[in-house]
Amino acid sequence: MRIFDIITKKKHGQALTDAEIEYMINGFVKGEIADYQMSAMLMAIWFKGMNDHELSVLTQTMAKSGDMIDLSAIEGKKVDKHSTGGVGDKTTLIIAPIVAACGGKVAKMSGRGLGHTGGTIDKMEAIPGLRTALKQQEFFDIVNKIGVSVIGQTGNLAPADKKIYALRDVTATVDSIPLIASSIMSKKLAAGSDCILLDVKTGSGAFMKTLDDSIELAKKMVAIGEHAHKKTVALITDMDIPLGHAIGNSLEIIEVVNTLNGRGPKDLTEVCLQLAANMLYLIGKGNLEECRKMAQKAIDNGSAFEKFVSMVAAQGGDESVLRDTEKFAKAPYKKDVLAEQDGYIIKMNAEQCGEASVVLGAGRETKDSAIDFSAGIMILKKYGEAVKKGEKIAELYTSKEESLAPAEKMYKEAITIGAEKPAAIPLVFARVEVDKIEKY
Amino acid sequence: MRIFDIITKKKHGQALTDAEIEYMINGFVKGEIADYQMSAMLMAIWFKGMNDHELSVLTQTMAKSGDMIDLSAIEGKKVDKHSTGGVGDKTTLIIAPIVAACGGKVAKMSGRGLGHTGGTIDKMEAIPGLRTALKQQEFFDIVNKIGVSVIGQTGNLAPADKKIYALRDVTATVDSIPLIASSIMSKKLAAGSDCILLDVKTGSGAFMKTLDDSIELAKKMVAIGEHAHKKTVALITDMDIPLGHAIGNSLEIIEVVNTLNGRGPKDLTEVCLQLAANMLYLIGKGNLEECRKMAQKAIDNGSAFEKFVSMVAAQGGDESVLRDTEKFAKAPYKKDVLAEQDGYIIKMNAEQCGEASVVLGAGRETKDSAIDFSAGIMILKKYGEAVKKGEKIAELYTSKEESLAPAEKMYKEAITIGAEKPAAIPLVFARVEVDKIEKY
Repeated sequence: MRIFDIITKKKHGQALTDAEIEYMINGFVKGEIADYQMSAMLMAIWFKGMNDHELSVLTQTMAKSGDMIDLSAIEGKKVDKHSTGGVGDKTTLIIAPIVAACGGKVAKMSGRGLGHTGGTIDKMEAIPGLRTALKQQEFFDIVNKIGVSVIGQTGNLAPADKKIYALRDVTATVDSIPLIASSIMSKKLAAGSDCILLDVKTGSGAFMKTLDDSIELAKKMVAIGEHAHKKTVALITDMDIPLGHAIGNSLEIIEVVNTLNGRGPKDLTEVCLQLAANMLYLIGKGNLEECRKMAQKAIDNGSAFEKFVSMVAAQGGDESVLRDTEKFAKAPYKKDVLAEQDGYIIKMNAEQCGEASVVLGAGRETKDSAIDFSAGIMILKKYGEAVKKGEKIAELYTSKEESLAPAEKMYKEAITIGAEKPAAIPLVFARVEVDKIEKY
Repeated sequence: MRIFDIITKKKHGQALTDAEIEYMINGFVKGEIADYQMSAMLMAIWFKGMNDHELSVLTQTMAKSGDMIDLSAIEGKKVDKHSTGGVGDKTTLIIAPIVAACGGKVAKMSGRGLGHTGGTIDKMEAIPGLRTALKQQEFFDIVNKIGVSVIGQTGNLAPADKKIYALRDVTATVDSIPLIASSIMSKKLAAGSDCILLDVKTGSGAFMKTLDDSIELAKKMVAIGEHAHKKTVALITDMDIPLGHAIGNSLEIIEVVNTLNGRGPKDLTEVCLQLAANMLYLIGKGNLEECRKMAQKAIDNGSAFEKFVSMVAAQGGDESVLRDTEKFAKAPYKKDVLAEQDGYIIKMNAEQCGEASVVLGAGRETKDSAIDFSAGIMILKKYGEAVKKGEKIAELYTSKEESLAPAEKMYKEAITIGAEKPAAIPLVFARVEVDKIEKY
């Protein structure tokens, strides 16, 4: 077998055999296939794609290139969740406790933030004392006891993906639906859960700019999951507008607490109920309507919030800040952003809002930047709301006073105020299950 | 400027600017652009192509990456010729003396053979004493005095092409018309002649398998030449059948001598007259009909042969073997190939015939193989000719007796004998000049 012939096949749009895909991935990981050959291959895939079978074999081969986490020590059905990343997206910390409160098991590994989107692990570390690096046995014990634990990624998951992604990043082959699908799903397959819920963001701030592309990506990922015998569902959700009112780590944890206590923003609560319902559906708790009611009840009766508190405590975090969020450290500098005219908010560029929060210190500009947990933005007026000239539309928080002016400028540029009330944007656009696509 | 953005543009089918093309080629030659980025770019070009302007800038940038030969020390119009390579193709050694005999100047650098096609320089070295590595001044002096000299490539011509070709060779991006066109033309532009005649082979044994692809390649190369202010014409010639009767170095030189003396095979003579006529046309010796008559006359009156003898003598070769070709060293082993049935030769696979000659020792299997000048094949019956069972259709010559049996087997497999006389195949299919395509 020669990589030259495999590139030639793909270049001409032919499907690769299982053996060819395995030869290519394993050879590349071992360094037997050169970077320049792999990048030509990736560009050929960018143009010619892969069918569902090829993609499944590719993804499973990438998953098997490293550790395959064995969750069999955890009783019951384990359900994982993945999001393609959004500004103000703190859904994991809301829905994982809801699912646990309803009897599901969530043994979740999450990532840190980079650039304009935050990361769940960073948000958790805003809680004093909380540990996100646990030994495997402790992780399993917490999930067995409480039903939920969220930790940073451990082990050597899908090293083939790491090596391929590094090459895609410098050869303009990131924006390929099959390559995105295999990259995400290789890590999910290696992470060991029985079921997978995918939250695929769509809109100006997301990788997938159009609904059609988002659905296409969702279909590919669902097919990969099902082929690997993991029940998989994808929701296509909006990423034109930041989710909820809080951007920034402590601010978002406070919003998580409020939402778990039934006092969350309407948009965030609605998205979380739909995500949680689908996770419960995946592990066989009933139909979607029943599962949604179950999720709502877990908020209403306080059981979801208690699961969250128990998980935080089990991971060494200070639960008192959750019971009284006034105890979170406050940022020393604050600035109000005022509306410059009367009208309605007709556009909120989520990506620019996220970048303004990074300037305030809430995110990382480079991999090694430190995070200011108290920094961030509280959005007071969202898309569609009426504003008066001079009215407060947001609050900026930071420890770096000099960042307030540039962040205010960025935030104002992210917001457009117009004369007419704009049409509502759906929170969830579509749902993709194997052989079933529903557009909402 | 970033190569990432340039790859992205080409991937989306957009035309690159002159500055982008120069940045890419010069950066790659300097090692500032990585192999894996260039190979992704080459694959994007494979899919999306390049327009005539991009291709001209690409080719001129590649040409300028190394030495640009200055032929101004040679008086008169210099005309170069390039062939994409064929089995039994000894046309350069026939047409260059014809053009010189008619007053043209041919300062030609040629290559060695590799694989199933031979190289002009190897053929010349079958003449005892002949030097193909000349100092520039000696090369110029011979062309000024005699009108023609053919030497091996000197200087550092188009190093960008060498580096790009090495990458294309291992990333399945060789078979791209714009990349082939720029590769060939970058070396022709660097070689410094005023006019260029291109012999583009088409057919089963050639790179371009179809007439349409061959014309497309020819159009691209003519456009590149004209854009660089070099008058350029391309002929599309057949490569389904070996050209002439001789394959192998000494055997081909003998055929060159016979053709220059008006006793050459009909097909070879006809192709040479058309090629020579076009070279004379390019340097302004008249219309095609007038130029062809001139070329025919140079054969008829012996002046072309005398030019060849003078060139060989000037380069240190033994002219006596040209005046009496019986003096060429004979191969010690010979085998006749006999027809296995009655009928007509309906197919001759040129590539396989070439490979049989390599087995006999006439060509190189690897870059460093030695050549047996006396080895080769004399074809006695060509495409379309009637044969009787047991009749001699070819003679094999070699110094390695053990190669006779496998070469005979290969030659027989290359030949198909059928019951019906096949239709004639044109020798020249088309002629491409700027804004003018004639199909014959």
